[in-house]
Amino acid sequence: MKNNEAITKREDDFAKWYTDVVRAAHLADYSSVKGCIVIEPNGYAIWEKMQEILDKEFKKLGHENCQMPLLIPENLLKKETDLVEGFAPEVAWVTKGGEKELEENLCIRPTSETLFCDYYKNHVKSHRDLPKLYNQWCNVLRWEKETRPFLRSREFLWQEGHTLHATKEEAEKETDQMMGVYHWFHNEILAIPSIRGKKTEKEKFSGAEYTLTNEALMYNGVTLQSGTSHYFGQKFSEAYDVKFTNKENKEEYAYQTSWGTTTRMIGGLIMVHSDDYGLVLPPRIAPKQVVIIPIGEDQEVMEKASQINEELNHHQITSYIDDSKKSPGFKFAEAEVNGIPVRIEIGKRDLASSHITIARRDTREKILVSTDTNLSSYIEELLETIQKDMYERAFKRREELTFEAHTLQEMEEILENQPGFIHAMWCGKKECEEEIKNIKGCKSRCITEEQSIDEKCICCGKEAKYHVVWGIQY
Amino acid sequence: MKNNEAITKREDDFAKWYTDVVRAAHLADYSSVKGCIVIEPNGYAIWEKMQEILDKEFKKLGHENCQMPLLIPENLLKKETDLVEGFAPEVAWVTKGGEKELEENLCIRPTSETLFCDYYKNHVKSHRDLPKLYNQWCNVLRWEKETRPFLRSREFLWQEGHTLHATKEEAEKETDQMMGVYHWFHNEILAIPSIRGKKTEKEKFSGAEYTLTNEALMYNGVTLQSGTSHYFGQKFSEAYDVKFTNKENKEEYAYQTSWGTTTRMIGGLIMVHSDDYGLVLPPRIAPKQVVIIPIGEDQEVMEKASQINEELNHHQITSYIDDSKKSPGFKFAEAEVNGIPVRIEIGKRDLASSHITIARRDTREKILVSTDTNLSSYIEELLETIQKDMYERAFKRREELTFEAHTLQEMEEILENQPGFIHAMWCGKKECEEEIKNIKGCKSRCITEEQSIDEKCICCGKEAKYHVVWGIQY
Repeated sequence: MKNNEAITKREDDFAKWYTDVVRAAHLADYSSVKGCIVIEPNGYAIWEKMQEILDKEFKKLGHENCQMPLLIPENLLKKETDLVEGFAPEVAWVTKGGEKELEENLCIRPTSETLFCDYYKNHVKSHRDLPKLYNQWCNVLRWEKETRPFLRSREFLWQEGHTLHATKEEAEKETDQMMGVYHWFHNEILAIPSIRGKKTEKEKFSGAEYTLTNEALMYNGVTLQSGTSHYFGQKFSEAYDVKFTNKENKEEYAYQTSWGTTTRMIGGLIMVHSDDYGLVLPPRIAPKQVVIIPIGEDQEVMEKASQINEELNHHQITSYIDDSKKSPGFKFAEAEVNGIPVRIEIGKRDLASSHITIARRDTREKILVSTDTNLSSYIEELLETIQKDMYERAFKRREELTFEAHTLQEMEEILENQPGFIHAMWCGKKECEEEIKNIKGCKSRCITEEQSIDEKCICCGKEAKYHVVWGIQY
Repeated sequence: MKNNEAITKREDDFAKWYTDVVRAAHLADYSSVKGCIVIEPNGYAIWEKMQEILDKEFKKLGHENCQMPLLIPENLLKKETDLVEGFAPEVAWVTKGGEKELEENLCIRPTSETLFCDYYKNHVKSHRDLPKLYNQWCNVLRWEKETRPFLRSREFLWQEGHTLHATKEEAEKETDQMMGVYHWFHNEILAIPSIRGKKTEKEKFSGAEYTLTNEALMYNGVTLQSGTSHYFGQKFSEAYDVKFTNKENKEEYAYQTSWGTTTRMIGGLIMVHSDDYGLVLPPRIAPKQVVIIPIGEDQEVMEKASQINEELNHHQITSYIDDSKKSPGFKFAEAEVNGIPVRIEIGKRDLASSHITIARRDTREKILVSTDTNLSSYIEELLETIQKDMYERAFKRREELTFEAHTLQEMEEILENQPGFIHAMWCGKKECEEEIKNIKGCKSRCITEEQSIDEKCICCGKEAKYHVVWGIQY
């Protein structure tokens, strides 16, 4: 079967293949607004599913959703020096409102720590007011130079959690807990095996004491940061004067965290699982899990389709009948390019021999199933099998592209041959990190807790302090 | 019982009462960003509930969610002359990105017709591609001078539906259908009796052929526009060159509609239903319908509370136990100010005589109920009764504040005494509409299909063409 929209082969040109899949599956499109994309219904439905699952987890852990303003006055942004240095080069400035020049410029939020601090300040007095556990789903803007749908664009959608605590211990526990949610979400829901660890000083979020990160490996061996969780300590509270009276009746600066994931995860999903025929979605994140395609308009066929659809929906499987006026071949190709995990084909001839055909999107395998089968159980199991198989294939690919380097030369050879996750020891000095970056832009992805593999720093040969995973990043 | 946070009496100062309720119920707060508000968790939860119910309806009718960019290039905005004239005085302009002046200014979307047109243009070729039924949930910005939480602020959240059709008939049907959804939502879910009709030429949306509107009356007799649906005909398609090949194989401009509701509906909810004790929410829109307050920490009491909570949750009633370390009196007041429709109080003494106490938020009535009662059915029914009673009270209030005027003098007397919905006939001329506006800013709210009440225009005395509802607006 050939797709009706040409997709470049993944092995030939990964970047072009990626864009082709995004376009062919109608996930997103470029817009007349430089650097901004249109998220089309197929793409937005994936984001809604991500929101639904994550939001439920956040709420289960006691977080409440709220909404801060889109705009930040210049003086408010500038109170935290590290933050402003990190973000100033990449914010958009509103300088005119209506027909008047503004007295003070306003930037479009690149992130909302400053706004949350401004809010906390007036709403927290005592330890009895703590913790505050907030989250918001919104758009943010960073003045990027390149545009790649979902991976890099000026505007993107995300969730940003912001929490305020009475103690260091509680805030650090929150930072770790939310990283746990992201790790779980990637592994269990997106079927993306990922590793968690700590960012180096150089790679942490501007203004954080430390940043925890979840890192995934794409099919081509390039790494993608997939969720970060920041521990701020009292840094922001000092800059924005967020104090509370503690249990000992003393004034103290409150402890903060923030954590976020973005529409970038859609990019990750594509680059881990999709193939030359288009999008492939793990069943747990697929907005539509099953498509039923009647072949011909025979009444018996249509009735069987309706009956199966009802049965599946009744069992919480999101299925639908494609009864549009297109040819069956066209419908098959469309379901395939759109990544619907399971396709059920019902034809008159098959029915006559008491069979229907089931096609898996991930393996493109076709299975002939008797009409006597308990279909809802069968499909339920099949969806779980697909989910598990997709994770395992991604895991195997990651293992194949995970390397150890003991010398800079080894690292260079690996990167020249096939990039991936490269494990290597590091002394902790910025100079060594920068020297390593000179090798094809290889950056530290995270410090892991795994056992050390050498006694010495791969770069300077001095005592190694950290076991670091390195890689080329998106 | 007195509230712990002082609320101005509604009869004394309606505007101050409104702001006091918003603050006391922690719905929203002002921010350091002039003209922008913070939507706090209690307010945002109402918005989430509104989104959930409306979104389900939109999808049932075949609409798909998507996401257009936040920014609009100046030249794109300017293509539709009426639209730009309507919105230019009230948009915010981004003129600087990163550290560079932009070559072309970008405005923050005040509404997204231009962006949808820009998208349609590249995605619609034939009548087979139609209809396109889109919706997006997002933030928009209009450079308002005043700020009143939920009623008027520079940034607000809304949904904007945008659809594209092959025929005039289909587009007009859509315009009417979506107005029907808004009307149903206000009457059935928000318990706000509202009237629907058509805007006059003067009051319609810039760029629309006509605008349908849903209008509600607040407790103080001021009117609130509560959902609008616009029929654009081919106007935008001509300006943005959105063509398709019709069934006769001829090129034609496509027919468009757009329709929207905003976080303003939260303001409407407050101004129709709330009282001197704080927020009152109709059960169908209340994020939390029932609070269970155990009095004392007796084990039997706590067990009963858990048992009731589980039973209610099991029956799809959103209840929760307030087991915080505050006094029962404080918890009662908090539940009251926050507008939780039903409060269940469980005390040791009541339990000893096999009773629990149930309090209705709307009437503040307390009911002693035997522990033998089937509580889930009882509460289910009670919630429906509250919903119905709230609608009926609001309806009665609206009837009391609905007037007929046959002369300008009568209209003036009504407005001086007590504003409300004023029915009066109109010839259709702008000059008369403007003269009426001179009476305390009274504006046409909508043209109704109701029977005429006079033969002559209330203003010029010439032949009346329209039966119009007039009023003072927010």
